Amino acid sequence: MSRAGPPLALTLGEPAGIGPDISLLAWQRRDVAALPAFALLATPELMRTRAEALGLAVPVERVGFGDAAAVFPRALPVVDLGLPVTAAPGTPDATSASAAIAAIDRAVAAVTTGEAAAIVTNPIAKHVLYAAGFRQPGHTEYLAELAGRRAGAAPGGAPREAPPRPVMMLWSPTLAVVPVTIHVALARVPDLLTRELIVATGRIVARDLVARFGIARPRLAVAGLDPHAGEGGSIGTADRDVVAPAVAALVAAGIAARGPLPADTLFHAAARKTYDAALCMYHDQALIPIKTLAFHDAVNVTLGLPFVRTSPDHGTAFDIAGTGTADPSSLIAALRLAARLAGPGRTARAAVA
Amino acid sequence: MSRAGPPLALTLGEPAGIGPDISLLAWQRRDVAALPAFALLATPELMRTRAEALGLAVPVERVGFGDAAAVFPRALPVVDLGLPVTAAPGTPDATSASAAIAAIDRAVAAVTTGEAAAIVTNPIAKHVLYAAGFRQPGHTEYLAELAGRRAGAAPGGAPREAPPRPVMMLWSPTLAVVPVTIHVALARVPDLLTRELIVATGRIVARDLVARFGIARPRLAVAGLDPHAGEGGSIGTADRDVVAPAVAALVAAGIAARGPLPADTLFHAAARKTYDAALCMYHDQALIPIKTLAFHDAVNVTLGLPFVRTSPDHGTAFDIAGTGTADPSSLIAALRLAARLAGPGRTARAAVA
Repeated sequence: MSRAGPPLALTLGEPAGIGPDISLLAWQRRDVAALPAFALLATPELMRTRAEALGLAVPVERVGFGDAAAVFPRALPVVDLGLPVTAAPGTPDATSASAAIAAIDRAVAAVTTGEAAAIVTNPIAKHVLYAAGFRQPGHTEYLAELAGRRAGAAPGGAPREAPPRPVMMLWSPTLAVVPVTIHVALARVPDLLTRELIVATGRIVARDLVARFGIARPRLAVAGLDPHAGEGGSIGTADRDVVAPAVAALVAAGIAARGPLPADTLFHAAARKTYDAALCMYHDQALIPIKTLAFHDAVNVTLGLPFVRTSPDHGTAFDIAGTGTADPSSLIAALRLAARLAGPGRTARAAVA
Repeated sequence: MSRAGPPLALTLGEPAGIGPDISLLAWQRRDVAALPAFALLATPELMRTRAEALGLAVPVERVGFGDAAAVFPRALPVVDLGLPVTAAPGTPDATSASAAIAAIDRAVAAVTTGEAAAIVTNPIAKHVLYAAGFRQPGHTEYLAELAGRRAGAAPGGAPREAPPRPVMMLWSPTLAVVPVTIHVALARVPDLLTRELIVATGRIVARDLVARFGIARPRLAVAGLDPHAGEGGSIGTADRDVVAPAVAALVAAGIAARGPLPADTLFHAAARKTYDAALCMYHDQALIPIKTLAFHDAVNVTLGLPFVRTSPDHGTAFDIAGTGTADPSSLIAALRLAARLAGPGRTARAAVA
C-alpha cells in the first residue's frame, strides 16, 4: 500500500447518490484504514458543496493523476471532469448521467495509460443512465466494452483479441463467491446454465486468482444447482448432466475444481477452508452466504478485464445521500483490495491477465 | 427441562446408521447438556452391542415409558420394539426397515396417548425403506399420515379434520427458516410456488410460532424468489404476481408478514433481528443461510402436526456409523428444543395446535 506509485482512479458514480459522501468519509479515514492514494474523478465544486452539507472538514484539491499521491495526505485529490454537475443529494438531474459516464471513461483511459493503478467505481443508477440513452446492461458491461475498444485500438498491428468477458466476484476476507448467472429470474437459470458458461467462468476465475490474487494453484468449489446437488439425478438432472461435466472439463484443463457440491453445506467455516472461491450457479446462491457472513465489507471485483476494478457492494442509496449516515466500509474495503490486486507487480500481472 | 413429566420418545432411525451412536453419546452428556429425559425406541441388545463396539460405558435398561424418567439418570432407557435388529454399522439389512418403521409407529402412539411428551427422530435411509415397500415420500409425510389416521380414529364422533399438513422448519438459536418448496429440482420451483402454498405455509408457521414457541405475535419475513425480489418486475414477475399477493393475504389474515424481501440481505445479524422466521421459496435459499450460521446445531422441526416432532439436521452417515466419530450436537439440540416446545403447558398448547 505504498503511496509512491500511481493512484487508484475512483469514479464519481451517480452524483445524487452516496458516492460523494462515502468518498469524503473514506478519505477522512485514510490513515486509520491505511488507504492507498486515490484520485476521485468528479468536480471540485460538487465535492466541496457535499463536504459542507455533511459538515465534513475535507479540503478538496484539483489535481492531475500525477499529483494525486502527493496531495492525498493533505486533501482529497479530484481530477476535474470539466462538466457541470448540479444534481442534489437524492435527486438525479440532467447532469447525472453525463458525469457518471465521463468518470468511467476517464478512469479506463487512466488505467490503460498507467496514470492510474486500478479502478474503483462508486455506484451508479441504471435507470438514470438508461433515461439518458445509455445502452449497456450495466456498469461492468460498459467497462468491458471500453476495455475492448482500447484493445482494438492498440497500435502496432497486434492481433485483435476476443472482447474481455467480465466475471463478477464478491470477495471478503472470509469468503469469495462467483455467480455464474446473475441478474436473471430464477426460472431462466436452468436454461442459461450451460457447460460452456460454467467452464468459461471457472477458467477466468482460476486465471485471475493466480494473476491478481497471487494464489499459485487456486481451488474452486463448484456448487450444485439443485438441492443436495441433485442426489445423483434423483432431484433434477442438471447437476449430473451439466455441472458435473463442466467440473470435469475444468479439471482436464489443469484447474483444481471440485463439484457439483451441495450448496447448503458449502459455506460453513470448515468448508470454506477447502477452497479459494466458490462458483455458484445463480445470484442468491452466491450472494446469500457472503452477505450473511460479510454484510458490511464485501467487495465486488470484476475479473476477466485487462485492469483491476473493484466496487463497493451496495447501490446509490438515494434515500440517505447527503444525510451523513452512509457507511463507507465497503468502499474502504474496495479501495484496499484494488491496491492489493494492482500491487507492486502490477505491470507483470497485467501482462499475464 | 423437568424430568418429572413424560419422557421424550426418541426413535431408533436406521439401525445401521449413526442413530444408535449419537443416542448413546447424547445420553452420556445428559448432565452437561441439561437434557430432558428420553426413552429410546429400539432393542436393548442392539444398544448394548453398539455401546460395546464404541467403547462407551453406557448401561442400558429396558423400560416402559412410565419408568423412563426415573431410569434416565442411571441408564439409557430403551422401550423394546420386540423385533430382531441385526444390522451392523454401515450395513443395513432386512431388519433395518421394519425396526425403523416400528419405532416411528410406537413413538406416534406414545405421544398421542400422552405416554411421551414429544417425538425426536433419528435419521432414516429412504432407499432402505423404499426397498422394503415403504410408500411415503419421507419421514415427515409418514408422521403426518400416522397423525391423520389417529385423528380419524378418534372416538366420540368428533368431526374429521383435514389431514395434517407438515411444514419443515430449520431452527437454531440465531435463525429459523422454512423452505416453502423443498426437495425438488430448481427448475420446478417457479411452477410449484403458488400463492396458496405460500399462504398455507405461512399460516401454519405463524400458528405454531404462537402455540409451540410461545411468541405472541410472530413476525414472518418472506423472501423473494428472484434476485433483488424481482426489482418490481424487472427481474422476473413471480415476486410481483405470486409472492407479493401471498404476503398481502397473510397480512389480511392478521399475520405480521413482510415481503417479498431480497433474499441476499435477509440473513445478516441486523436483518435477523427483525423477524422470528423467514419463509424461503426453495431449499437452498433456506438451508444455505442456516447451515452457514449454525452448521452443527440446527434442528429440524416439523410444524403443522398435532404433536411436537424434532430431528437432527443430518442423515444416517453410514460411513462413520460404529466408528465413534459421529457428533451428537444436532441430536442434543433436537432433544432440548423438543422439550422446550412440549413444555410445561404442553396439553393446552396441543389443543391450540
